[in-house]
This record gives sequence, structure tokens and C-alpha cells, in this order.
Amino acid sequence: MDLITEPAALRRACDEVRARGARVGLVPTMGALHRGHLSLVEVARARADLVVASIFVNPTQFGPGEDLERYPRTLDADVAACAEAGAGYVFAPTAKAMYPAGEETRVNVGATAADLCGVHRPTHFEGVATIVTKLFNIVGPCVAVFGRKDYQQLRVVHRFVRDLFLPVEVVGAPTVREPDGLALSSRNRYLRDEERPRALALRKGLGAAWEAFAAGERSVSHLRALATEPLSDVDRIDYVTLADPETVRPLPDGHVAGERLLVAMAAWVGKTRLIDNVVLGEDDHPHRQGD
Amino acid sequence: MDLITEPAALRRACDEVRARGARVGLVPTMGALHRGHLSLVEVARARADLVVASIFVNPTQFGPGEDLERYPRTLDADVAACAEAGAGYVFAPTAKAMYPAGEETRVNVGATAADLCGVHRPTHFEGVATIVTKLFNIVGPCVAVFGRKDYQQLRVVHRFVRDLFLPVEVVGAPTVREPDGLALSSRNRYLRDEERPRALALRKGLGAAWEAFAAGERSVSHLRALATEPLSDVDRIDYVTLADPETVRPLPDGHVAGERLLVAMAAWVGKTRLIDNVVLGEDDHPHRQGD
Repeated sequence: MDLITEPAALRRACDEVRARGARVGLVPTMGALHRGHLSLVEVARARADLVVASIFVNPTQFGPGEDLERYPRTLDADVAACAEAGAGYVFAPTAKAMYPAGEETRVNVGATAADLCGVHRPTHFEGVATIVTKLFNIVGPCVAVFGRKDYQQLRVVHRFVRDLFLPVEVVGAPTVREPDGLALSSRNRYLRDEERPRALALRKGLGAAWEAFAAGERSVSHLRALATEPLSDVDRIDYVTLADPETVRPLPDGHVAGERLLVAMAAWVGKTRLIDNVVLGEDDHPHRQGD
Repeated sequence: MDLITEPAALRRACDEVRARGARVGLVPTMGALHRGHLSLVEVARARADLVVASIFVNPTQFGPGEDLERYPRTLDADVAACAEAGAGYVFAPTAKAMYPAGEETRVNVGATAADLCGVHRPTHFEGVATIVTKLFNIVGPCVAVFGRKDYQQLRVVHRFVRDLFLPVEVVGAPTVREPDGLALSSRNRYLRDEERPRALALRKGLGAAWEAFAAGERSVSHLRALATEPLSDVDRIDYVTLADPETVRPLPDGHVAGERLLVAMAAWVGKTRLIDNVVLGEDDHPHRQGD
């Protein structure tokens, strides 16, 4: 396993891999790796001959006042974990390498980026689409793997890959959870001891909606009420949105759900913003899955 | 020479070319081809084993009220001209193939797209950057050739190619002119007989600045005045801008030029918008070059 920091060096390395007929896979991350990230590397390994894991805390996807500075950085441990998970290269560039002086190009995705987290983080997905496009162009992967925990991000990547005709297959991998159902997130380490139990409110809301849907409930307003109720435990709700799983367009309260329905939420516990989601009719129960 | 209309078919064809170790070149055009376009194919042929010429009147680079509908479309003649010029493939997709229902991604370049034509055509370069990115991702060219007549467009392409780490060499080819110095343009066919002589005002202005610069003049305000004076013959001036040739940032009147200086202009003769430019200290005289 090699650690590479220069884009040109990574391109050369990936060109060589492809030149010998091997398939390159990519797992973009911001580091602070947990089992969820490592599961993405495993998914990529099953679909490619060599996996590049990138570790880059991308400044353009953080808004003013967000946690760019305090975002956890654990490079040595991350590199060791990637090596153990079977990544061939870890790419850990500097911000200046990815955004050199004078750069000014951004990739914008429209409606897919507008709702849910887009309302609360208006430039977030522009930053995501821009950095992922850069990584795709440096690495030239056949396949790239993203976690379904960041569901809207996954749809944004699907959207611009299709729109821009990028020759890469985008794969979403299941959310990995703690035994009690909390979705793994690098931001979980921000949670204080007293906050940790309250962080379960999100998976409780998703679980309530999941069970009602399984029992036949299809009213968007009822499902939304069930998903929201446990969030009385959090300090602030950004959103609880029921949406089309493809377009992530929110569905109005009067809507009757079809076969699949996205329930996505973002809420604050203390100073920690948590997100979670489930696709009803598709995903496993957000708690039992973690057992 | 093959005519291809489907993006997936073009990708397969180009993948096969690359798989046998050959270099692919790309010349993106909007058709209505003239000798200027064909010179781009020649430049590309000198740098690649197979040249793709694309012919696509890109709707997203036209603003409201612009000439999208009446833009000349001469596909049969264009295909024949490309074959004669040595293109291997002509790619002529439908608008729906390049912008299918639901697409919503745009590539935005910042300051490089803001001045000159960007002031008068605020969404133009977003449309250019988006379609060229799509074409790059379908074709996967080693080299792409653009005319220097659309100087700001060339700089926009250089900018986003560098910013997004696209693995393609961008080459600018010299403006081709009529014997009297008029820069070739698909829009020249809009000009009425009485308008044609007045269209020379642009190259006259550029020529006056060129001669003064060659004689040692370095005052931006003087050079701008010289370039503007012949434009008394046109019906409306969009801009006459002296700018940095790399960044296309306008230089203020008090500025003293360095070794190279872009003089760019856009003006209307009747209902026809014409653009032209010269890089002082680099390009040939905009008239003698056409002799």
C-alpha cells in the first residue's frame, strides 16, 4: 500500500494500473475512518483490481461557521486502516494541491442538491460535486463507492456522473451502524457521554416509520409524524423529509407513498449535527440491521 | 469517416481506438463549418491518430433572444468537409441526447467567464464549459483544439480543464481570416451586402492597436482609443477590452502594458454580433495574416 500526496503522481500510478488491464476503484473519504468507510473499501475491492482510498477534508463542502477546522484528522490511523482493508493506494493531498491558486471552477447540481441538507448547507453539494469530479478525473476509476448514510450526496454523485457522461459506475453501500443502531459517522466522536443516548433519536424515528410502512401505512403525513416524534430528544431539528428516493424531491403531506420512500433527517445533539436515512421498501430496519 | 449520433456509440468507438494504443483528438464545433474549423481538424490531426469533430448547436450557450433558432445548420456539407479534412468520426448528437430529461448539472468557471462576452452573455460560458466537459468525458481525447477567434472561450476551457484535472491537452489554433482580414465566423453569413464592408471595423481597430504596440505604445488607454476609433462604422459596441491574455481580466486605463496584451472586442453590424481579438506581442497582424 502506497501513500500518495500529489495528484500527478496518483494519475501516473493509476494510468499504469489501467495500462496493464486492471480495474481501478475509488473510495472518496474525508478520513477519520470508521467501519463504515472500511466497508466501502471492501465493496470496491469486490468490483476492482486496485482500490484508491482518498482522504481529504474538502474545504469547499464546509460552509461558514461549520466544523472545517475541528473536523477530526487521524491520518496515520486512517492509512493503517486502509492498508488492512486492502486499499492499494491512499491519496491524501493538501488543500493547495486540490485547489491551487487561481482555481475557480465549480460543478453545480440543480434540484437534487436543493432540498434536505441543501437547504441548511447551501454550498455543500457544490463542494462535494467539485471535489469528486476532480478525484474522478485524476484516478479514472471504473467504479466509485459511496455510503448510503450520506444519501443525498450519493444521489448528487449519480446525477452529475450521468449528466456529465463520466465513465464511472457509482455504487451506494449500506449504512453501517453501532449495535444500538446509531449510524456510524466521523462526527459521532464529537458526542459527549450524556449526548450519546439522545443521538439514537434519529434511528428511532426511522425505525418507527419503517415499522409502520411494513405494516402497510402509506400516508406521507402519518409516516412523517411517526419519524419526527422521537426527535423530541434532540436539541434542534434541521429537517425530517419524506422524498422520492431517486430525485430526493420532498413529497407533500397529502401524498400517498408508492413502493419505495426515502425518509431522511438531520438533527443536532449538542453541537453535533447528525444525519440518517432509510429507504422504506428497500433498506433493512435501521436498528435490526445493526444487531 | 463515420457519422455517429449516440454518445454511447461514440464512447465505444473511442474506447476501441484508445485500446489499440492510438491517440484521439477532439475538435468541438457548432457546425456551419468554414476554413477556420477545418484548420482545427488539421491541427488535431498533427497531434492525434484519430480526430473526432463534433457538430452540435449547444442550446445552453445561447441566451434568451439570441440566435439559437436561426443559427445556420449545414450538416451534410459539414460532414463532407470533415471527411475531406481527415476527421475519423463526426459526432452529431441531438439536443436530447446531450441534455436528456432530468439533467441539471452545470460546470461554472468564475472570473475567467465574467468579463468581456460574459458581461453581455451571462450564461454563455457556463453552457460552453458544460457541453465541452460532456464531450471530453464521452470522447476521452488526449488533445482538443479550439480557435483563438473565441479567445475567452479558449481561456475558459483551459481554466476548467486545469481546475478539474481533466487529462486533456488544450490547444488554441490561430484565427483564420478572409483576404481582407475579416475573421471567419459561421455568423458572417448573416451579413448583408451593405454590412459586409462595415464588418471590417473590428480588424481595423485591432490592426491599429497592433501597429501602435509594434511601434512601442504601451499605454492601455491610448491603445484602447486606437482600437475603438474604427468602430464608428458598426451599429453597436458590446465592448472593447484590453486584458491580461492569461486571465482575461480587464486592465484599467491607467495601466501600462507588459510584453503581451489581449485586445478583444464584440460589436454589432446590423443584427449580427461579431467578435475578434489579437494578442499584442504574440499574434500576427490581424490583416496581413489573412493576406
